Amino acid sequence: MDLKEKDSRILQALQKWAETIVQRAKESGDVYMELPVRTLRNVIYDEEKGFLRMGERLARREFLNVAHAKRFLQTSLVAAVVADLIREGITTSLRDVYYRVKHTIPGTRENTVDQQTETDRAIVDLETMLGFVREELHIFSKGGKGKVAGPFELVEHVYTSDGKVRTVEFDGTNLGMGGWPVPPIVEPERVEIKKVDADFVLVIEKDAVWQRFHEDKFWDEHNCIIVTGSGQADRPTRRFVHRLHYEFKLPVYVLTDADPWGWYIYSVYKQGSINLSYLSPQLATPAAKFLGMAISDYHRFNFDRTVKIKLKDVDIKRLNELRRYPWFKHKEWQQEFDLMEKEGFKMELEAGASKYFRFITKEYVPAKLEQKLFLP
Amino acid sequence: MDLKEKDSRILQALQKWAETIVQRAKESGDVYMELPVRTLRNVIYDEEKGFLRMGERLARREFLNVAHAKRFLQTSLVAAVVADLIREGITTSLRDVYYRVKHTIPGTRENTVDQQTETDRAIVDLETMLGFVREELHIFSKGGKGKVAGPFELVEHVYTSDGKVRTVEFDGTNLGMGGWPVPPIVEPERVEIKKVDADFVLVIEKDAVWQRFHEDKFWDEHNCIIVTGSGQADRPTRRFVHRLHYEFKLPVYVLTDADPWGWYIYSVYKQGSINLSYLSPQLATPAAKFLGMAISDYHRFNFDRTVKIKLKDVDIKRLNELRRYPWFKHKEWQQEFDLMEKEGFKMELEAGASKYFRFITKEYVPAKLEQKLFLP
Repeated sequence: MDLKEKDSRILQALQKWAETIVQRAKESGDVYMELPVRTLRNVIYDEEKGFLRMGERLARREFLNVAHAKRFLQTSLVAAVVADLIREGITTSLRDVYYRVKHTIPGTRENTVDQQTETDRAIVDLETMLGFVREELHIFSKGGKGKVAGPFELVEHVYTSDGKVRTVEFDGTNLGMGGWPVPPIVEPERVEIKKVDADFVLVIEKDAVWQRFHEDKFWDEHNCIIVTGSGQADRPTRRFVHRLHYEFKLPVYVLTDADPWGWYIYSVYKQGSINLSYLSPQLATPAAKFLGMAISDYHRFNFDRTVKIKLKDVDIKRLNELRRYPWFKHKEWQQEFDLMEKEGFKMELEAGASKYFRFITKEYVPAKLEQKLFLP
Repeated sequence: MDLKEKDSRILQALQKWAETIVQRAKESGDVYMELPVRTLRNVIYDEEKGFLRMGERLARREFLNVAHAKRFLQTSLVAAVVADLIREGITTSLRDVYYRVKHTIPGTRENTVDQQTETDRAIVDLETMLGFVREELHIFSKGGKGKVAGPFELVEHVYTSDGKVRTVEFDGTNLGMGGWPVPPIVEPERVEIKKVDADFVLVIEKDAVWQRFHEDKFWDEHNCIIVTGSGQADRPTRRFVHRLHYEFKLPVYVLTDADPWGWYIYSVYKQGSINLSYLSPQLATPAAKFLGMAISDYHRFNFDRTVKIKLKDVDIKRLNELRRYPWFKHKEWQQEFDLMEKEGFKMELEAGASKYFRFITKEYVPAKLEQKLFLP
């Protein structure tokens, strides 16, 4: 489906959504929209699907209810902006949408919105009611900070606001030092993954470490696609990994620091995040496995003691939060958590440089892959 | 000069530097290195050159001085690591260098280094003593977060650690949505700018706003190169802008939020930063001009009052710091500072969306360019 078809579907859905509201008003005088509840109580860890998802609870937002009226207005205004964006063939940022919607209501001193959180929330309203993700509605957050390299071919269909389309081809084995920069929107109508010759996807938490794998052509030696989200991954990077997994049946392995923050980054690639639980079907990759680093690797690979970083209170607090997440209940993870607390240290991906710069690409990761030393 | 020639020059310089130290030891028994003082007192705002630079003061670091011995050791160890990196054809991160150098000194409980700041500082020692920048010494910080598009052609010579070189060509008018990702190292031996058909360079503070300019093909309509550093610019982005200016005589205009933080980002592109004053000859672009946003633009372009963001104490504090920087002493800037304080608000690049999404690319920037409404 190309962008035009996709856009016309979305406009139809918007139209239908608006008509339903009008219809209700005409029939019963009740002006309301019905939308999924997004409080924590309606976030479910679905063991079968293997990801966090939104529950079934719905709530009504009523126009003639003082407590609801402003949010009703905000969601309606944002819906109108989305329709404009699509008709004009423009993409834009969350921040832009906020300013676009923010105005003083004539005859009052009241603004339509006062904070960006209000338009952001209205965009989530639309995502959940229409069943399209924000990026399909032409809205992104920031520029995208992911990087990719390896044996794949893709075509970007670059839609410019003058109505023209450029197609740009990328060969993942012939990229510059910066790799393929994951754009702010990677939906299939814009990023068409043509061909993948890889055996697996290796996701690397830190961009500086990804550079090591890229320079060492790890993707060539091990026939894989290397991805980094540069820290906590943004939505397009997670979406791209998700697409590689589902469209090309590639196993996904994730490599992070051995600390509670890195481990949580892994879990976000895998199960999704609490805030974006409604997007897990588009973003999560429940089959992802954890490749490293684990505290047990310290002994297994005989690291120098100088690489240990003493745990702080804030680390232990976060560790205990991880312990309680249902998706970390596996015995193997609980053992890792216990080991970290007992040994009292964390460890970074760069620790391998203590031996030699290419230890991580030449020994550590190959050994973990070969011996299948994964955590669930 | 290709990478091999460059590398052999650096190895020669390292060799000579080391031999000088040995020579001195043999002749007088004095083992010392001489290096520029890097305290604030030796940072000079050079009005003639138009940038911050390091002064002439030198200091000795002596091996047989208890206060100096450890730093002497650290700098020597890092010098050895740099020589290894160059010989092995490897680039790496500051964090990696830290781990590479960190070891317990045999027979003691003392580590060579305890914090990354120590190896970072040693790398600066080498930069200032050898006259090569860190990136020429094969060391980068992070992955690079800049993006570029427009009428230019460049070739990346991608050196991989197996000794092979790939050349990858980029046409800046045919890039994906993510543009050309500025790699962690943009020295000429790796990034060769072949051809530039642009009339000027437009630097945009925020990546989400850069996306607007890219989608609207501003670079085509106004025949320019658009660059973003995604907030405070990293070294490679500043270096690339510097190269565009000096190698192709392009004027550089900078577009930031109308707030003290955005204005400081502008000044870093232009005059360099206090911390990296010794790098201004490689990084600064003193001829850069400020295109916007200014507080005076609020009235000039008749913005809606809802775009005003009330100044906080921390903004006013920063504003007063800016007032005192010698490079902001121009009358025009001081008037802007006064105006901001008097009116009590700041304003963001996204404010234009309050009118319509493409206001910034269709009206605001074209008008500022046409009427040459620059600040120095």
